[in-house]
Amino acid sequence: MKEIGVGIIGLGVVGQGVVKHLNRNASLLSERISTRLSVKRVFARNPKKKRAVQIAPELWAKNWESVINDPAVQIVVELIGGTTTAKEIVSQALTQGKIVVTANKALLAEHGKELFALSTKYKAPLFYEASVAGGIPIIKALNEGLIANRIQSLHGIVNGTCNYILSSMTQSGASFDAALAEAQKLGFAEADPTLDVDGWDAAHKTCILASLAYGFWVNPKQMYVEGIRKVSAQDICYTRQLGYVIKLLGIIRADGKNDVEIRVHPTLVPKEHVLAQVNGAFNAICVRGDVVGDTLFYGRGAGQDPTASAVIGDIAEAATSLAGNKQVRSFSAHKLYGKVKKIDDIVSRYYLRLSVLDKPGVLAQVAQILSKNKIGISSVIQPESDEEGEHVPLVLLIHDSTERHLRDALKQIDKLSTVKAPTRLIRIETFE
Amino acid sequence: MKEIGVGIIGLGVVGQGVVKHLNRNASLLSERISTRLSVKRVFARNPKKKRAVQIAPELWAKNWESVINDPAVQIVVELIGGTTTAKEIVSQALTQGKIVVTANKALLAEHGKELFALSTKYKAPLFYEASVAGGIPIIKALNEGLIANRIQSLHGIVNGTCNYILSSMTQSGASFDAALAEAQKLGFAEADPTLDVDGWDAAHKTCILASLAYGFWVNPKQMYVEGIRKVSAQDICYTRQLGYVIKLLGIIRADGKNDVEIRVHPTLVPKEHVLAQVNGAFNAICVRGDVVGDTLFYGRGAGQDPTASAVIGDIAEAATSLAGNKQVRSFSAHKLYGKVKKIDDIVSRYYLRLSVLDKPGVLAQVAQILSKNKIGISSVIQPESDEEGEHVPLVLLIHDSTERHLRDALKQIDKLSTVKAPTRLIRIETFE
Repeated sequence: MKEIGVGIIGLGVVGQGVVKHLNRNASLLSERISTRLSVKRVFARNPKKKRAVQIAPELWAKNWESVINDPAVQIVVELIGGTTTAKEIVSQALTQGKIVVTANKALLAEHGKELFALSTKYKAPLFYEASVAGGIPIIKALNEGLIANRIQSLHGIVNGTCNYILSSMTQSGASFDAALAEAQKLGFAEADPTLDVDGWDAAHKTCILASLAYGFWVNPKQMYVEGIRKVSAQDICYTRQLGYVIKLLGIIRADGKNDVEIRVHPTLVPKEHVLAQVNGAFNAICVRGDVVGDTLFYGRGAGQDPTASAVIGDIAEAATSLAGNKQVRSFSAHKLYGKVKKIDDIVSRYYLRLSVLDKPGVLAQVAQILSKNKIGISSVIQPESDEEGEHVPLVLLIHDSTERHLRDALKQIDKLSTVKAPTRLIRIETFE
Repeated sequence: MKEIGVGIIGLGVVGQGVVKHLNRNASLLSERISTRLSVKRVFARNPKKKRAVQIAPELWAKNWESVINDPAVQIVVELIGGTTTAKEIVSQALTQGKIVVTANKALLAEHGKELFALSTKYKAPLFYEASVAGGIPIIKALNEGLIANRIQSLHGIVNGTCNYILSSMTQSGASFDAALAEAQKLGFAEADPTLDVDGWDAAHKTCILASLAYGFWVNPKQMYVEGIRKVSAQDICYTRQLGYVIKLLGIIRADGKNDVEIRVHPTLVPKEHVLAQVNGAFNAICVRGDVVGDTLFYGRGAGQDPTASAVIGDIAEAATSLAGNKQVRSFSAHKLYGKVKKIDDIVSRYYLRLSVLDKPGVLAQVAQILSKNKIGISSVIQPESDEEGEHVPLVLLIHDSTERHLRDALKQIDKLSTVKAPTRLIRIETFE
């Protein structure tokens, strides 16, 4: 049986999972791909660290370069993380014509364009299934299974930490701070949760999905990104009364002309929609194609084992392509779509929560400003409130409007003497 | 740009969809795979029939053989259906070393073993994404994306007609006959619904999924197959009271030793489970892998467009493999698993509906027989009933038992003079 040599750079949580499951399911994998996968070299910054997997002493490399340079290594697996050394590793490996497998979403979101250019130039495939939604094979689905489709829209719950926090706020009525603290205690959030709760991890993944769907590389700097820190227990409660659940969604959508919307923010989802049922640390991605219609992909989006499942899937695919010299489509750039749409130009429905003086005539003032700006109100509720003093919440649902129009109106509304605090805005998706 | 020639045999609903979307999204497909897909020959039994797509006169072939024999045709797409001519077509094409794409689940379920043997012998890949669950790329997921996993279990709603009927019975309380008639009127069921409602279509698809998961070809004759004709409005109502929804599931499961369960039957699904939320003509497949954990794939399982999406995905994959001479893994046979388990040896929970005399002591009689057979009862309800006369329903939920044990006990129970009719048995899945 043919043998393919694998080099692993980085032996943290995911790296150890890859080694563990490559060993455990070795015979099944060999049968399935008619090729033996053999780990030939391993590099970790601290090889002495106590780990759950045993690495034979002769496999340890002194530095990452010697993993790449080893002629026995045909597939380089980058699991070291970060965007500096990781970029050097992936670039050098591709330049040498070696196939690369990575789980590094930040690296691809920031440097995907140049890395895929290297991949094309040196005919060295770059695999990245594990970079989005852990064990869910969504990259393969977009790149191959749904290739017949123009992607009309994609809505993804792609950050398990945020979904865990929002689910627990919804179930228990807890505040964001309390839910975050609990998630940290249970290992669902990092000690420094910034990358997750401020939306950047979801943004990196959404960039990768959008690039795949639309054929031009999207940089996270071109996107609108808003995290979940400002989602309050109040908002969760009022939106629920209105028949919605709040989720952090990555949203991409072709506008039918030339531009595409790409954004990450808390979003009201109708409670009957399948994404509203996705709770805890799970991920799910709804893809609407012009041929296939609506599809959904669901599973664990992070963690050692689901991520290892995706990395090993890529290694197997790489090995198959080496055996047969397959022309791999890592990423196909084309110019059939235009550019990223500015958030100001997005048309959406909105949830607005105002804090207003509890006296007659305030709603009339607000409604007049909206009406002057040609913005329609679809629902009004004045919920019971625990707020102290003379101010009370006023909740409005707004019909389709461009964000620019609505922001202009909100500036006027927030200047009213009867309005106490900046109005809270959350976008609504209806999936129509 | 390289061009790949496609021959299409069969121009019914799916065939027309394939031609339509190949044309509509031609430029996008070319960009994505760097190859132009060109339909070179078409055969249909009745070329004169009025169709929604235009075929240039010079493309029409007089018989299917001349499609296969045309040197310009590199990919043969079999969409003629049935298992007789279709088998000849696929066999001849493979024998000539041509890549075949098919949507024919009955053909693969009945003759998969020999067709994949031909595919291996003549190094001609056989693609079949459209044979299971329409536009959902589940074959690719099992064959590639989840390749790192031993498949512990798979639960699929893979027949849209049955799911439509069961959903409408659940929503409206209608009888099976009324729901079937409505489904026929709306085009969700055929005039002769046998293949769907008796479970054979689901069985064909479940065979294909099981074969892929476990590496040996399963024939539908080895499976237990039970359709939905006997599901009554009563059963739907009582199971709902108990917290369950009835779905026709294809179930496959490795028993941890050597054998695998493969079966299709109406099943009680806990109403919080994600499969319970899959309504109407939608399909969904839950796959539990030993590395990835639980995943779900959801979408439209039939119809012109979703099926065309899968067929075109396969054509694109075939074209990519031709361009790069990829070693395609259509199906990898191996002997790591043993054989199909008999339904008698399955361990499950059960819902039982008895029709009994309305007098004291009957439950005691029934419970005694179950207890003698070491079968535990987890719930008893005696629902209000519309049945006339002296007989009333008695519903029991049964703990884990082998089916053989339970059948033995039921034989004794059904002989009791206080029991009016054969006891109704429906299996329960708890997804634990």
